[in-house]
Amino acid sequence: MIIDKLISKIQEMQSPIVVGLDPRLSQIPDHIKEPIYAEKGKTPGAAASAIFSFNIAIINSIYDIVPAIKPQIAMYEQFGPEGIACYKETVAYAKSKGLIVIGDIKRGDIASTAEAYSDAHIGKTDVDGEETPIFDTDFITVNPYLGFDSIDPYLTDCEIYNKGLFVLVKTSNESSSQIQNLQIADGRPVYAHVGELVDHWGRGLIGKHGFSSIGAVVGATHPAEGQELRELLPRTFFLVPGYGAQGGKAADLCGMLNKDGLGIIVNNSRGITGAYQSQKYKSNDEDFAEAARAAALDMKADLDVNM
Amino acid sequence: MIIDKLISKIQEMQSPIVVGLDPRLSQIPDHIKEPIYAEKGKTPGAAASAIFSFNIAIINSIYDIVPAIKPQIAMYEQFGPEGIACYKETVAYAKSKGLIVIGDIKRGDIASTAEAYSDAHIGKTDVDGEETPIFDTDFITVNPYLGFDSIDPYLTDCEIYNKGLFVLVKTSNESSSQIQNLQIADGRPVYAHVGELVDHWGRGLIGKHGFSSIGAVVGATHPAEGQELRELLPRTFFLVPGYGAQGGKAADLCGMLNKDGLGIIVNNSRGITGAYQSQKYKSNDEDFAEAARAAALDMKADLDVNM
Repeated sequence: MIIDKLISKIQEMQSPIVVGLDPRLSQIPDHIKEPIYAEKGKTPGAAASAIFSFNIAIINSIYDIVPAIKPQIAMYEQFGPEGIACYKETVAYAKSKGLIVIGDIKRGDIASTAEAYSDAHIGKTDVDGEETPIFDTDFITVNPYLGFDSIDPYLTDCEIYNKGLFVLVKTSNESSSQIQNLQIADGRPVYAHVGELVDHWGRGLIGKHGFSSIGAVVGATHPAEGQELRELLPRTFFLVPGYGAQGGKAADLCGMLNKDGLGIIVNNSRGITGAYQSQKYKSNDEDFAEAARAAALDMKADLDVNM
Repeated sequence: MIIDKLISKIQEMQSPIVVGLDPRLSQIPDHIKEPIYAEKGKTPGAAASAIFSFNIAIINSIYDIVPAIKPQIAMYEQFGPEGIACYKETVAYAKSKGLIVIGDIKRGDIASTAEAYSDAHIGKTDVDGEETPIFDTDFITVNPYLGFDSIDPYLTDCEIYNKGLFVLVKTSNESSSQIQNLQIADGRPVYAHVGELVDHWGRGLIGKHGFSSIGAVVGATHPAEGQELRELLPRTFFLVPGYGAQGGKAADLCGMLNKDGLGIIVNNSRGITGAYQSQKYKSNDEDFAEAARAAALDMKADLDVNM
């Protein structure tokens, strides 16, 4: 079960960290970008090439100390077909290095459409009888607003292909409260209701640690809600964005752990991939990958001490 | 204002129809697919080529009788980078024929990510100072579950680039009730609350007909909710999926119109693009585009008489 593989990797690395690979061009050093721009111009294809080179270096620098990466597909989709090719190649390279890959795609649509997304991202696409994996990530994030029939096609593929989901429950952004915290008639907030749906959807995919391969996205920026959701959903693993740049701290995460110290994987994107640009790690552009490694180790130490 | 352009096209064509371009390979005639498979094999790239040829023929057959098309990006994304290239080229070709294009992407993410999606789909992507439009659709669909700060980047681009949105409010699928119909503490369902947010988000983009470029997705399969939302949201234009294959009928749509007979654009995908395969239009595979035109005209007649 993929959730067991994720937990094993977390235990092996002693690090519940997922590195968000959401590179912005402003983060990519000139020594990578300039030769590519010189050859191809400042085109979407050049941007995709630069991002791929950057990603390879980051992956090479962190694959032996973190269990997983999480590429945000929007940062690739913004460069069109060549960006999507870069996303696909980044996923494949990370998997070749033994990393678990969480595709942050947040798709959500009616069943016939969800089948197509599921085929592409965690299953196989059928071309009149020839089945081909396309992006082939280990987990994807999905949006629950359309309800069960929009999630069901993914559940089927999770079972067939040993994949997992993280369903948006309580997101890290400030406006998440506008809909997710509405109080429903039984006195609970929408996110608690959605959390219970996610627990129910995942009941058939429980691994040996008691967690399901169908997890939830719960922002580090909402520690009270995170603790409440942990109590409500003991078998739901949490993908936790919002640490670092968005303001979430290690101490905010304690309530999301179970008694075994398990239950979360914490994302950090800019704080790791852009570490070389920060005051703390201020280093030569050439050393961006080493700075990323140092930042990932510092984050592990922060979680060790304060969580 | 793009909403005025859409309404003008609807009035000019006397047809509030958007043709969903969500081709499945099972819908594409062998005379298109076989030569491509013979050359490229049954590959994702071959599938994308076949879909593009099919789309061109459909667009050529309907561009003078309907105001808009709505490609569902999942049906392209499932074939990877080459599928995304097909999506992009389909959008460009449809626009060159004067059609309004609604990109059915249903994206929804935190602000920094939404900016990237917005750049790609309705704005321009910046490559270190060189700005390039990528998909450049006229409208896109978006998911509201993350609240205002996840929508705001799109609103900015709608204003700058004269584009529009359709925000998911009450979707056509059966399970939409699981979250969208939860009753909140003030006695209203979630979809009504979301509808009011959409109305508020669109208040700065009202066109000459009194409708905003920020519209809502409201399924034809929920006529009572549709009528309720029309009364609640007099300035919100509705993109209406669910007619035909999903069970929505023309009579179900009456309550979504305003007193001027405006307020909706109704999607039909398989019922038009796959018409040649149905009993009613049963025709030679070679005549698939003519069958699509006949089905679009029959749908217009159905809406004229029964709506």
